[in-house]
Amino acid sequence: MKNILIIGAGKSSSSLIKYLLDKSDEENLQLTIADISTENALKLLNNHINGAAISLDIFDEKQREQEIKKSNIVISMLPASFHIEVAKDCIKFNKHMVTASYISEEMRTLDAAAKEKGLVFMNEIGLDPGLDHMSAMKIIDRIREKGAKMLLFESFCGGLVAPESDNNLWNYKFTWNPRNVVLAGQGGAAMFKQEGTYKYIPYHKLFRRTEFLNVRGTGKFEAYANRDSLKYRTIYGLDNIPTMYRGTIRKVGFSRAWNIFVQLGMTDDSYIIEDSENMSYRDFVNLFLAYSPSDSVELKLRSYLKIDQDDIMWEKLVELDLFNPEKKINLVNATPAKMLQKILEDSWTLQEYDKDMIVMQHLFGYEMNGKKYQIESSLTVLGENQTYTAMAKTVGLPVAIAALKILKGEIKKPGVQLPISKEVYEPILKELENYGVQFTERDVEYLGYNPHNVVG
Amino acid sequence: MKNILIIGAGKSSSSLIKYLLDKSDEENLQLTIADISTENALKLLNNHINGAAISLDIFDEKQREQEIKKSNIVISMLPASFHIEVAKDCIKFNKHMVTASYISEEMRTLDAAAKEKGLVFMNEIGLDPGLDHMSAMKIIDRIREKGAKMLLFESFCGGLVAPESDNNLWNYKFTWNPRNVVLAGQGGAAMFKQEGTYKYIPYHKLFRRTEFLNVRGTGKFEAYANRDSLKYRTIYGLDNIPTMYRGTIRKVGFSRAWNIFVQLGMTDDSYIIEDSENMSYRDFVNLFLAYSPSDSVELKLRSYLKIDQDDIMWEKLVELDLFNPEKKINLVNATPAKMLQKILEDSWTLQEYDKDMIVMQHLFGYEMNGKKYQIESSLTVLGENQTYTAMAKTVGLPVAIAALKILKGEIKKPGVQLPISKEVYEPILKELENYGVQFTERDVEYLGYNPHNVVG
Repeated sequence: MKNILIIGAGKSSSSLIKYLLDKSDEENLQLTIADISTENALKLLNNHINGAAISLDIFDEKQREQEIKKSNIVISMLPASFHIEVAKDCIKFNKHMVTASYISEEMRTLDAAAKEKGLVFMNEIGLDPGLDHMSAMKIIDRIREKGAKMLLFESFCGGLVAPESDNNLWNYKFTWNPRNVVLAGQGGAAMFKQEGTYKYIPYHKLFRRTEFLNVRGTGKFEAYANRDSLKYRTIYGLDNIPTMYRGTIRKVGFSRAWNIFVQLGMTDDSYIIEDSENMSYRDFVNLFLAYSPSDSVELKLRSYLKIDQDDIMWEKLVELDLFNPEKKINLVNATPAKMLQKILEDSWTLQEYDKDMIVMQHLFGYEMNGKKYQIESSLTVLGENQTYTAMAKTVGLPVAIAALKILKGEIKKPGVQLPISKEVYEPILKELENYGVQFTERDVEYLGYNPHNVVG
Repeated sequence: MKNILIIGAGKSSSSLIKYLLDKSDEENLQLTIADISTENALKLLNNHINGAAISLDIFDEKQREQEIKKSNIVISMLPASFHIEVAKDCIKFNKHMVTASYISEEMRTLDAAAKEKGLVFMNEIGLDPGLDHMSAMKIIDRIREKGAKMLLFESFCGGLVAPESDNNLWNYKFTWNPRNVVLAGQGGAAMFKQEGTYKYIPYHKLFRRTEFLNVRGTGKFEAYANRDSLKYRTIYGLDNIPTMYRGTIRKVGFSRAWNIFVQLGMTDDSYIIEDSENMSYRDFVNLFLAYSPSDSVELKLRSYLKIDQDDIMWEKLVELDLFNPEKKINLVNATPAKMLQKILEDSWTLQEYDKDMIVMQHLFGYEMNGKKYQIESSLTVLGENQTYTAMAKTVGLPVAIAALKILKGEIKKPGVQLPISKEVYEPILKELENYGVQFTERDVEYLGYNPHNVVG
């Protein structure tokens, strides 16, 4: 009997737990699902004989150590900043560990200890980071094995609402942490490289510098640049690649409207609004407009941001009830970002039968024997319902598959890892196909950016 | 014989030292001017018998203590972050202290010790902060003594080039630390209050939300909002004032053109540009524009920021030689802000015979017996040459006057202070008039913001 300790029974753990329970008889697994409250864990277990829910306070060192000691592998689905204490215990008690989070500096310092003890610490094995790494490296490795030279790598990912539930003007709902959506893109300029030229976009221009992309069978989208595309060059072994770009996918028109919030300053999370608790939606908007009491908030906003009368962006604002003088935000000592989030949650919270959708697309440009080629690899995953969402599947299944393979000794390279080697990504991507997580690949014309390349 | 130790012989120390030397026979003063190099101090002393220049490394504790011990009062003209070690020594050896810097948290913690020992630690007694506090409090106190109620306080200050040296399209040159000019307004939204309504402007809109102001006899200017106008409410005893606004003065049109740099992202100091050492001015501009190698940098910029062909802003950019593909910036591992500064220094460095100018204006609105009134108080100071600049006079003279008055026991309230009490500001403002630092005051119609107020 192998014991798997899963810490965190939030939205991203459903498909992960289901996968392991479904395999539990065949693989002889016992699951312990630990969270501060057992409510969600009990729901997800649904009385399965091979699982138990326990209440665990992650800061209770004694209990945490005790549970980790009893396990054979630990899966931490906690927020990224909480992994490190668990990781240190795993070193102490010789346990493998899996997370879907970026490798933190603290986590990296455990690499030597993990290697010495022969422990696999697999990270960045959810959706993004995770599926993006694996699906990209699969094609990059194949291109390199042919002896070709990589010219371009662009990668896009987005969590969206499924077409059947897409019924607002923004074509968007919160399918994941709303706070992260409000703060997206902040903290520094977006940086990437196009045909050898570095490009930097400040936050306040990010949502006006989108690019379009087509995902066959799913539709036309736009993407804004992620913060640091450049750091992926080294991870993927593409140090000298001329074009490197990563972006976040939205439905067309979203970013141009979102830019209104950015321009106004509504996404700022760095200061507290005085008297926020007494403000209406309309008062909130007015904070960011010139003082001119004889003019309406509407006209001041239109004039300030030059929004024409026939611009659909205006209707998007109205749909959010942004100019309502009666509706209170009801938040004490709130930042602009928190107040905006509250307003958006009114309109963008998933309803009971709403489904979500994950879209990912990579473009790979390469040169072989003097000719240029391009491969497009795309993924669309639809959620089943509000429990087994596309997000939960794409984050949780790679984690679960990796954990089982580590347990069975099929993934065994020790140390603090991410899934970029063939031994890891190949079997995992293969198995994911059984769960509807399957990339479609096609050869397209190499486009690049230079019109001479397009013609020639 | 009284010994005055002046630490720091930079640009802001010239008028300060001249004032004290001129008084040295009459007041029996001996000046010690300490800096890491004696070069500038020797120039400013010009062989005066009552002064000596010494080389002092502020981090050499022993020498620092020794010099402080020998003095009767210490004037620190060091960068603000270096005051604290000097201040601790002043507590230790029972010396008064004067600085022109904002009171830091660390400085504030010395308040009790200074009070206990009867030491005056006078801070914020330069130009801004300093002259602004004193000249504002003089009128605010007078209005309150009449039993009137303050309705409005707006305060503007700017360091500019004197009209006779104003010969570029920006009507601007660096008369002070260029780095602070490039970074001005960053680090958070500007916040102020107008007729009871809070207003917040994000950095990327700051330079498009300027207000105009007229300074009689000097001209028409514009001002952009300072970071936190609200904190001055408590300092000035104006906690419930409906309108509170502080701004930085520029010549009309400067901010709209400066906004181009902000929009492009060129003022960002938070990240390093890869390969900065090899970039031309033109390459630098292109970093912030879309990749499109068949289009010119010029047209991409015009199109991106919607700059019309006949817009003078364009000529301002050309004047800076911003599109030159030959001129290298020559900075290794530089941030955008540092690269921009380098480019601007080519054009905006004061030439040998250039003079500077300080402009300050306050507006005070108040209500008495049901009627509304407004007072406008303005100051213009011109520099004499590159040593005795308007900046050096307005920063250094209040410091020097305060130091002498503390020495003579005329200012004696102990503790960590700023110059907002009548006993301090009244004699200092009076004496400053002898040096051409004189505010002109006039009663104007109360305008406020509300058109009903203006009409009524």
